[in-house]
Amino acid sequence: MTLPSEMKALLLTGDGYTKTPSGSALEAMEPYLEQGTIAVPTPRPSQVLIKVSLAAINPSDVAFIKGQYGQPRVKGQPAGFEGVGSVAATGGEPYAAGLAGKRVAFATGLSNWGAWADYAVAEAASCIPLLDTVRDEDAAAMIVNPLTALAMFDIVKQDGEKAFIMTAGASQLCKLIAGLAKEEGYRPIVTVRRDEQIPLLKEVGATHVLNEKAADFEATLIEVIKAEQPRIFLDAVTGPLASAIFNAMPKRSRWIVYGRLDAEPTVIREPGQLIFQHKHIEGFWLAEWMRQHRDSMGPAVMEAQKRFSDGRWSTDVTAVVPLEEAMAKVPAELAKPNGKVFIKP
Amino acid sequence: MTLPSEMKALLLTGDGYTKTPSGSALEAMEPYLEQGTIAVPTPRPSQVLIKVSLAAINPSDVAFIKGQYGQPRVKGQPAGFEGVGSVAATGGEPYAAGLAGKRVAFATGLSNWGAWADYAVAEAASCIPLLDTVRDEDAAAMIVNPLTALAMFDIVKQDGEKAFIMTAGASQLCKLIAGLAKEEGYRPIVTVRRDEQIPLLKEVGATHVLNEKAADFEATLIEVIKAEQPRIFLDAVTGPLASAIFNAMPKRSRWIVYGRLDAEPTVIREPGQLIFQHKHIEGFWLAEWMRQHRDSMGPAVMEAQKRFSDGRWSTDVTAVVPLEEAMAKVPAELAKPNGKVFIKP
Repeated sequence: MTLPSEMKALLLTGDGYTKTPSGSALEAMEPYLEQGTIAVPTPRPSQVLIKVSLAAINPSDVAFIKGQYGQPRVKGQPAGFEGVGSVAATGGEPYAAGLAGKRVAFATGLSNWGAWADYAVAEAASCIPLLDTVRDEDAAAMIVNPLTALAMFDIVKQDGEKAFIMTAGASQLCKLIAGLAKEEGYRPIVTVRRDEQIPLLKEVGATHVLNEKAADFEATLIEVIKAEQPRIFLDAVTGPLASAIFNAMPKRSRWIVYGRLDAEPTVIREPGQLIFQHKHIEGFWLAEWMRQHRDSMGPAVMEAQKRFSDGRWSTDVTAVVPLEEAMAKVPAELAKPNGKVFIKP
Repeated sequence: MTLPSEMKALLLTGDGYTKTPSGSALEAMEPYLEQGTIAVPTPRPSQVLIKVSLAAINPSDVAFIKGQYGQPRVKGQPAGFEGVGSVAATGGEPYAAGLAGKRVAFATGLSNWGAWADYAVAEAASCIPLLDTVRDEDAAAMIVNPLTALAMFDIVKQDGEKAFIMTAGASQLCKLIAGLAKEEGYRPIVTVRRDEQIPLLKEVGATHVLNEKAADFEATLIEVIKAEQPRIFLDAVTGPLASAIFNAMPKRSRWIVYGRLDAEPTVIREPGQLIFQHKHIEGFWLAEWMRQHRDSMGPAVMEAQKRFSDGRWSTDVTAVVPLEEAMAKVPAELAKPNGKVFIKP
C-alpha cells in the first residue's frame, strides 16, 4: 500500500491542562481544535499506522480536548481516543507486524496520537483484530465504553450485593452496564435528567430510574436506597448529586468516581461516615484497570465482540459527521441525547 | 468487697444523635450532661465492674456527649470512654472472673456504660491488666490514644514511604505518633494552629511543622509535599485544611479521616485525582481496627505499657478535676492547649 505524505486531521490548539475548567459540554470546537494538514506519522517498532474508517467521540475526548482529562494535550497533534480502521503500516515488532492489513478497533491513549484524522497511530497492544460480524459503528466505540462496562460490572459482582447505583444513566456506558446487570439478575438504580429517558432505561435493564431534576428526587432516592441497600456507586457526575447519593448509601459503601460531568464542588457531606460506617471514596480509570488486569483483557474483548455480533449490544448512532464538516457540526450533534457521534475521515 | 447501692456519675441528657452538629469545642457541660446519683450497675457475664480511679477526656468523648460520634447516646447513662481502676465485681465468665481485684485500664465503647462515674462497666476483653510501673495518668489514657497511635503508625509503615502527614499535630495522639516515627526514621509533616507549638512538635519528632494559620501556609505545604512525597494523610480535622492537603499530595495518596475537628464543608477539590492519580479517601476507627486486628492487640498493648513504664511515653496532664467539680470546671480546662484533662471520682 502506498501511503500519502500528508493527511487531514483535527489538531489540538491547547497544550497540557487548562487552568479554567468549564464543565463537560462542548460549546464549540474552535477554542480547542482546528482542521489542518500534517505529515502522515511513522509508527514506532511497537506501533501500527491505521487508515481510519470511523472514529468515536466520547465524553473523555471532550474532557481531553478541553484540557480536563488525565493526559496532557500536545499542541498540533490530532485528538480522538478510539476508532476503527485497517492497519496500513507497522513498526516492525512481531505482534505489530502480525496486524498488517487487518481491520482493528484501536485506542490511542498510550500513543497519544489521535483518531480524528485520516491516519492514526496506536500501540499494537491497544488494537483489537475484529470479527467480520462486528459493524464499524460498534467497532469504533468498542474499547472505551464496552471494556469499561465489563470492568465496572466486575467490581459490582465482586461486592456481593445485587443492587448498585449509577449516575448519568442515559449514557451509552450505563446502558451497556444495565444490560449486563439485567442478564445476571442484578438491580441497577440509575439517575437521569429527563423523564422521557425513564422508560428507555427500564427497558435496557435498570430496576429504578430516578430523575435527578424531580422535586422529590432526594426523598425517592433515600427510599429506594433503604429498600435495595446498594453498596457500589459508579459515578460519572460528582458534585451535589453524587454527594447526596453517597450520603444516603449504607455502611461499607464505595463511591467510585470515573467522570466529572458536573463542575460544581464535590462535598463529602458527612466525613464521619468514612470513620464509623467504613465508607470509601475512590476512582476508576480504564487505562489503570487495563494495566492491573492484563489477564482479563482477552476474555473481555472477546465478550464485547460476541455481544456486538449477535445483537445483544448495539451502538446507538446519533450522527456520522465527515471530518471536513466536524468543526461546524459536531457540537450540535453532541448536544442531542441518547446516542453516539462519529467522525468519518 | 462490699459495694454501695448508689453512685455519683455524669449522666447523658441527650438520646441518639444530634440534628445540629456544632463543632468540636465543649462550650459548656450543661447542654449534654448532668451530675446525678444512680444505682451501681451489675455487670453481665462477660463484663466487669470497675471502681474508677481516674477517667480521661478525649476528643471522641466530647463528640459523643454532643451526639456527634459513631455511637448513639442513651439518656441517663454515664458518659466517658476510658479510664483506670480496680475490678470490684465480675460477671462470672472465666476471663472476666480472672480480672477480680486487678488494676486495669479499660474502655467502655462496647458496654456503652461510661467511665465518668464512681463505678463503670466494661467488657473484660476491653480491659488491660496493668504493670505496677504504669502511672494512673498514663493508664487512664492508655487505650484510645496509644492504641490508635500504634495502629495508625502501622498503616504508615505498610505504605513503604518514610514521609506522612498529620493534622491536629499538637494533640496527644499526634505527639505519640511523631515519637514512634522519629525512633524508626520516619518523617512526619504536621500542621498546628499556633507558632509556639512548632518547637515542641519538632522536639517530639516532627520533621516539618506548618502553622495552618500562616499567610504562606499553602505555598509552604506544596513545597514540603513536593520534597517529601508523603502518601499517607492521617486527618483529625477535615474541612478546607484537609481538602488543601489532599489536593497537594502525590499520586496514590490515601486520605485517612479519623476525626472532624472542623465542621466546615469538606470538599474534594479535584475529583479527577481519584480517577487519574488513583487517590483514595477512607476512614479509621479504633473499634473497627480492633475488630479486624485482634492478633495485633496483645503486642500493641504490651508495647504501650513498656513505653509508659520506661518514660519514652508520658501523658501531659492539664488538670485532674474531681467529679463533683466537673460540670463547672471541665470546659475551661479542655480549652487549654497541649495536655489531657482527667476526671477523678
